Amino acid sequence: MIKIGGNIIDDEAKLSGFLLEFASVKGKKILVHGGGKLATRLATELSLPQQMVEGRRITDAETLKVITMVYAGYINKNIVAQLQALGANALGICGADGNAVRAHKRVPKAVETQTIDYGFVGDVDEVNAAFLQTLLNAGMAVVVAPVTHDMHGQLLNTNADTIAQEIAKSLSEFYAVSLIYSFEKTGVLLDVDNENTLIRKLGIKYYRELKDTGAIFAGMIPKLDNAFAALDSGVEKVIIGKAEELQKLIEGQSGTTISLN
Amino acid sequence: MIKIGGNIIDDEAKLSGFLLEFASVKGKKILVHGGGKLATRLATELSLPQQMVEGRRITDAETLKVITMVYAGYINKNIVAQLQALGANALGICGADGNAVRAHKRVPKAVETQTIDYGFVGDVDEVNAAFLQTLLNAGMAVVVAPVTHDMHGQLLNTNADTIAQEIAKSLSEFYAVSLIYSFEKTGVLLDVDNENTLIRKLGIKYYRELKDTGAIFAGMIPKLDNAFAALDSGVEKVIIGKAEELQKLIEGQSGTTISLN
Repeated sequence: MIKIGGNIIDDEAKLSGFLLEFASVKGKKILVHGGGKLATRLATELSLPQQMVEGRRITDAETLKVITMVYAGYINKNIVAQLQALGANALGICGADGNAVRAHKRVPKAVETQTIDYGFVGDVDEVNAAFLQTLLNAGMAVVVAPVTHDMHGQLLNTNADTIAQEIAKSLSEFYAVSLIYSFEKTGVLLDVDNENTLIRKLGIKYYRELKDTGAIFAGMIPKLDNAFAALDSGVEKVIIGKAEELQKLIEGQSGTTISLN
Repeated sequence: MIKIGGNIIDDEAKLSGFLLEFASVKGKKILVHGGGKLATRLATELSLPQQMVEGRRITDAETLKVITMVYAGYINKNIVAQLQALGANALGICGADGNAVRAHKRVPKAVETQTIDYGFVGDVDEVNAAFLQTLLNAGMAVVVAPVTHDMHGQLLNTNADTIAQEIAKSLSEFYAVSLIYSFEKTGVLLDVDNENTLIRKLGIKYYRELKDTGAIFAGMIPKLDNAFAALDSGVEKVIIGKAEELQKLIEGQSGTTISLN
């Protein structure tokens, strides 16, 4: 179960490097992709103002349309076409396809003095493991866009890290699942601006210390919370690291290995 | 094998009516959709001039991006989400997914005194019947967006009528295939402006007569050429008619039945 971040998708050379590695990964594999900047760019071209709260996009109806077009259309199908060219039999889906990932519209949330309505943002209820197994057993490399549905016809914008974690959790009942969060950095860094400060192994106690001292902050916190939640729910391995070093990440020779102890 | 035209997709009420009928169709089923006007509207909003030659869209790189976003993203995933809500286990794909439909970029073509380069438009080479059978046997209703690929990483804009015909032909080796072209009219009309002039049965001889006299013209000609080609290649039935009367079309109680004799 591999997630790639938006900064890799925005960079054609990095994406190609990653897909080359992904295509040659042995065994059953699923890729979840984000794609933030391309969606923001299209929204700007269409003069749709974008509002982010705590790193999450407020998703009105027009923004959901952009998200669906860019994530489930442009990015998903280009990744699939490239993987096919590399010899991996890829199939691209969003959470509505085969009812792969069912979610519900997030309830408006009180943040300090105001109530935040995230709009058409989904919180995951259930992963359809049987459907994913059908595809994996047919030899498919499954490519998942971070759009889910509510089983009542409504598509929902959903965090890609969360989808990766939920799918990994769900499949860990049937397989020994490794969950890889791959992005542009070499892993979890003590100093976010210095690639030489990579933490090779991050246990839960050390993580809490680093969070308390403020060494780990912002976007890394939900990612790591997701990582520990996944381990807690039966996922065998969680590794965070550089997208172009995917094979090394899988072998535990690169990146940060997350562990409960 | 059912194709719906762009004018149905543009009309929310008609699309819902059609999908309700499609969801209740018994047996293995595939839906191919177009989506012309939504793509043209987005291209206009993005200030991309659109050029049509003989009803086909000249597809430069930016237009292909729009096509992929609108057809394989927005339209495909909304149809899938609606079908899931209606109890049909839909899976949306384009031709790149599972290498469902492989094509090649159309060779520039001499038309009168000039050479027309259609750009990123695909002519179908091969349908992956085994892949489609895997999905159909798993109980999926397959929803196909009219975007193909060349197995070298290039997506291609491809005519939806042609994709429907090619898939129908390919699957007719394994199943008794009915091919339904559904759109906003009641079928093939003697007078295109008068719904009371429906031709109930159209054989190849009568078709040639009507083409010679000019009674059938424009967009209907490639559709009917496709229809006769499908019958010629083993497709059992071809019926053209109104999208909201899908069940009646399948039963031959509505629309125009195309026949070789």
